[in-house]
Amino acid sequence: MFLRNCWYVAGWSHHFPEDAPVARTMLGEPIVLYRKPDGAVVALEDRCCHRLAPLSKGRREGDDLRCMYHGLKFAPSGQCVEIPGQSIVPPHARVRAYPVVEQDRWVWVWMGESALADPALIPAALGHGDPGWWMQTGHLAYEANFQLINDNLLDLAHLSYVHENTLGRNSMSWANSKPQVSRIERGLRISRWVVNNPAPKYLDQPQGMMTDMWTSYDYMAAGVFLLRTRSYAAGAAAASGMQAPTAEPLWTTLTSQAVTPIDERHTVYYYSGCLDKGFASEEQSKAQFVIFERAFAEDKAMIEAQQQVIWGTPEPRMLGTSSDHALNQFRRLMAELIDAEQLPAKAEAAE
Amino acid sequence: MFLRNCWYVAGWSHHFPEDAPVARTMLGEPIVLYRKPDGAVVALEDRCCHRLAPLSKGRREGDDLRCMYHGLKFAPSGQCVEIPGQSIVPPHARVRAYPVVEQDRWVWVWMGESALADPALIPAALGHGDPGWWMQTGHLAYEANFQLINDNLLDLAHLSYVHENTLGRNSMSWANSKPQVSRIERGLRISRWVVNNPAPKYLDQPQGMMTDMWTSYDYMAAGVFLLRTRSYAAGAAAASGMQAPTAEPLWTTLTSQAVTPIDERHTVYYYSGCLDKGFASEEQSKAQFVIFERAFAEDKAMIEAQQQVIWGTPEPRMLGTSSDHALNQFRRLMAELIDAEQLPAKAEAAE
Amino acid sequence: MFLRNCWYVAGWSHHFPEDAPVARTMLGEPIVLYRKPDGAVVALEDRCCHRLAPLSKGRREGDDLRCMYHGLKFAPSGQCVEIPGQSIVPPHARVRAYPVVEQDRWVWVWMGESALADPALIPAALGHGDPGWWMQTGHLAYEANFQLINDNLLDLAHLSYVHENTLGRNSMSWANSKPQVSRIERGLRISRWVVNNPAPKYLDQPQGMMTDMWTSYDYMAAGVFLLRTRSYAAGAAAASGMQAPTAEPLWTTLTSQAVTPIDERHTVYYYSGCLDKGFASEEQSKAQFVIFERAFAEDKAMIEAQQQVIWGTPEPRMLGTSSDHALNQFRRLMAELIDAEQLPAKAEAAE
Repeated sequence: MFLRNCWYVAGWSHHFPEDAPVARTMLGEPIVLYRKPDGAVVALEDRCCHRLAPLSKGRREGDDLRCMYHGLKFAPSGQCVEIPGQSIVPPHARVRAYPVVEQDRWVWVWMGESALADPALIPAALGHGDPGWWMQTGHLAYEANFQLINDNLLDLAHLSYVHENTLGRNSMSWANSKPQVSRIERGLRISRWVVNNPAPKYLDQPQGMMTDMWTSYDYMAAGVFLLRTRSYAAGAAAASGMQAPTAEPLWTTLTSQAVTPIDERHTVYYYSGCLDKGFASEEQSKAQFVIFERAFAEDKAMIEAQQQVIWGTPEPRMLGTSSDHALNQFRRLMAELIDAEQLPAKAEAAE
Repeated sequence: MFLRNCWYVAGWSHHFPEDAPVARTMLGEPIVLYRKPDGAVVALEDRCCHRLAPLSKGRREGDDLRCMYHGLKFAPSGQCVEIPGQSIVPPHARVRAYPVVEQDRWVWVWMGESALADPALIPAALGHGDPGWWMQTGHLAYEANFQLINDNLLDLAHLSYVHENTLGRNSMSWANSKPQVSRIERGLRISRWVVNNPAPKYLDQPQGMMTDMWTSYDYMAAGVFLLRTRSYAAGAAAASGMQAPTAEPLWTTLTSQAVTPIDERHTVYYYSGCLDKGFASEEQSKAQFVIFERAFAEDKAMIEAQQQVIWGTPEPRMLGTSSDHALNQFRRLMAELIDAEQLPAKAEAAE
Repeated sequence: MFLRNCWYVAGWSHHFPEDAPVARTMLGEPIVLYRKPDGAVVALEDRCCHRLAPLSKGRREGDDLRCMYHGLKFAPSGQCVEIPGQSIVPPHARVRAYPVVEQDRWVWVWMGESALADPALIPAALGHGDPGWWMQTGHLAYEANFQLINDNLLDLAHLSYVHENTLGRNSMSWANSKPQVSRIERGLRISRWVVNNPAPKYLDQPQGMMTDMWTSYDYMAAGVFLLRTRSYAAGAAAASGMQAPTAEPLWTTLTSQAVTPIDERHTVYYYSGCLDKGFASEEQSKAQFVIFERAFAEDKAMIEAQQQVIWGTPEPRMLGTSSDHALNQFRRLMAELIDAEQLPAKAEAAE
């Protein structure tokens, strides 16, 4: 079950070149994306209405896309505008067109009712394309349901275990700290002090330096993670009374991540890492990202293994613990949003 | 759903060597084929009646085939003639035997009721083994239902798109020409002029030479394609009033192709290419076949992609266009033949 | 359908190192095995009760095993003894623990009701770890149901066909000899003279030497094969009146083999080969084992092919022959044992 009236990341801007249509499966639906000569990205159903060949094997011609099986041509609206060997093109010869917005170096596709596609609902990625920040980008394909990835990102206690040798820096501070969780519009805000944590090795900090980090992120439907981490000298957390800090941090790190379901069993995970140019060099930004990608590979190994166990368990039941607080709240929020978008359909069915 | 009372190509003659049984799955049934010492091919159910081991892992002994799991031996009739350690062989110890005819370098197997296996129903391949023609042969395995391959071969408009750089020769002549379609016994005859088409580069024709081609093929149940192409200097089509030509062509090309279902999701495609020895050299025949095989790989890529889309679509619906005329007629013809062969079974069930 | 109240081999002792948990699927259940500091092997459900991550990706800490997703720690009893970030551990936070016995270089796991796990039910492997015998070990994974492997081992007539070039030594003696079959506690005893059989080439016997072999094995639920083969000069069988021999053999060979279901479609096969140190050298023992492993690869090829045919047959039916006697008896024995262990459950359901 997917939330449909929502923007989903279909890829990084650089995934969509000028002259080659790109195939994506999102929420179980085959989609072809291509750039028009003016650079705008078009997203159509990747299935010719004639004999169901994928349009992603087609050819862009001007603003249009031609199916390269029998030559039907489609406009960005999805309307078929040419059927070779036939003078009349019936109006119902069309494929579905999806609203697209390119923003923050991501291409976003609206998977629900087109009339409801409000670009204001797109979560604003942190630092993407901002000249003040070094920015690194990547993505990973998972053989797992997207919810397990959301769960993972909503309970960062796992940093002390899954990532003990990477992001966790051999410290129990993530497992032992308790986040504040509050509901925001279409998401949750999750903040905490992680205290007395070793500074990362890729920065030029004195050896053995310990830090307090104020980590705060918004987790937005259907799976967008926007984290700002502010690092201070150890003691800052206590000095602030464990409240949000007002002082300038030593440095700040940003990461934006997006979880896009391919289908019920496969997911793509897009992520960035941004580091303040005023504080760190490009080499340090790249060194940081090497750690990020090692950690994301650790997540993938754990989550895919967890998913295999779940798929192999006839009636999987999970035992709640106190660290599940945020992920349970987010699962409820998603269920509410899905329920809400299905109400009109249900009302119609009841008439 | 398959047409059972029909001859299907099980392979090229050279696929069946003298001393090694060969396994095939046809219409979902496991079949073992082997040559007797006199060269005749035998086709048996590839499943020992004892413990269901495949006889294709067995050993030919004289005219018979021995299962190499526990040693049961079967005659070409399918009757078990020896059970090691047991003096009596019960008459019901047998496997199914299939009628086989080797003709035109193809081994044909009758998949229906043996009593109805009439060799006269085998479509006559064009030029196979005829000393006046160069002959090249090949085959391809598809992950697709056989109907999609039949559809492809019944609408050659796709040559202008799928094969624009190979058989289509960058010309719209295939997409723009309309074939005449007529019903023949167990098939369709499909003919047309393809006009003002560049001569193929592998022949010694003057550069830039344009031709008119009279292309005519019979498409026979359950999927045999028999095409003769006669090439003339451009203008011949108009001169003949767009009717079948009576003049001698500059040259003629033949191709015979057979589509054999492995099961509902897999198919084998066998094909030849023949070129007149009086007109072309062996090198030219081979050069032509290189183009053929490039084109068949293009078909395979498109059809398998189309098949994946269809399998991924809950209720696939196709929009008819005028170029679907022949393939729709052939689908109806196949449905009639399948219905007809199931009438006796249905009548029996109704009693 | 599996027999649950039974010991199954989970692997060779050397498969379980000191500091790395090992994952196994047995009878469809995910199991993690690890050694405590005292060397004892623990077997737990390989599925954390929190979010179902596999404990086999965890870390041994003392006698316990910690899940490396969110840090829950489990004792050898299966009881969770720590939940990070939470002071109370509820008693129902636990995973299943399986009885384990390490014996004869095999690690045995009891897959049924723990209270019934009687180590006396473990079949005694032949020669394992006995300093008087050379011992070689191996294992193979099958894509096949375990029953087909049991069937294979219960009808050694196949040695004359499947193994004609390895164990069968190009002789029909296995196919032509009839075993005596008797029922023993939880198994069958199967004995026979195999007469006039060439001596194996890897032993220093005179060229062309023929032997009579008294081969006797116990086949124990759910799939343990314990074979002792005594070789004599040809004529010994007749001299003994075809009864069990009392004289000292020229040499003796032992092999113990265990068939463990992974699930309904996959199986692991563990096997040893032992040769008398008083008779043969270590090189000869290794040379014998090369033949064994060649033969077991022959079995695997045949059985996996047979399994594919069976899976592809809608209603597979087998024709009985006289050589199926023992395997049919063993299938009945297994059905009785499975029925018996399900009686209490059925009685409960009926109340």
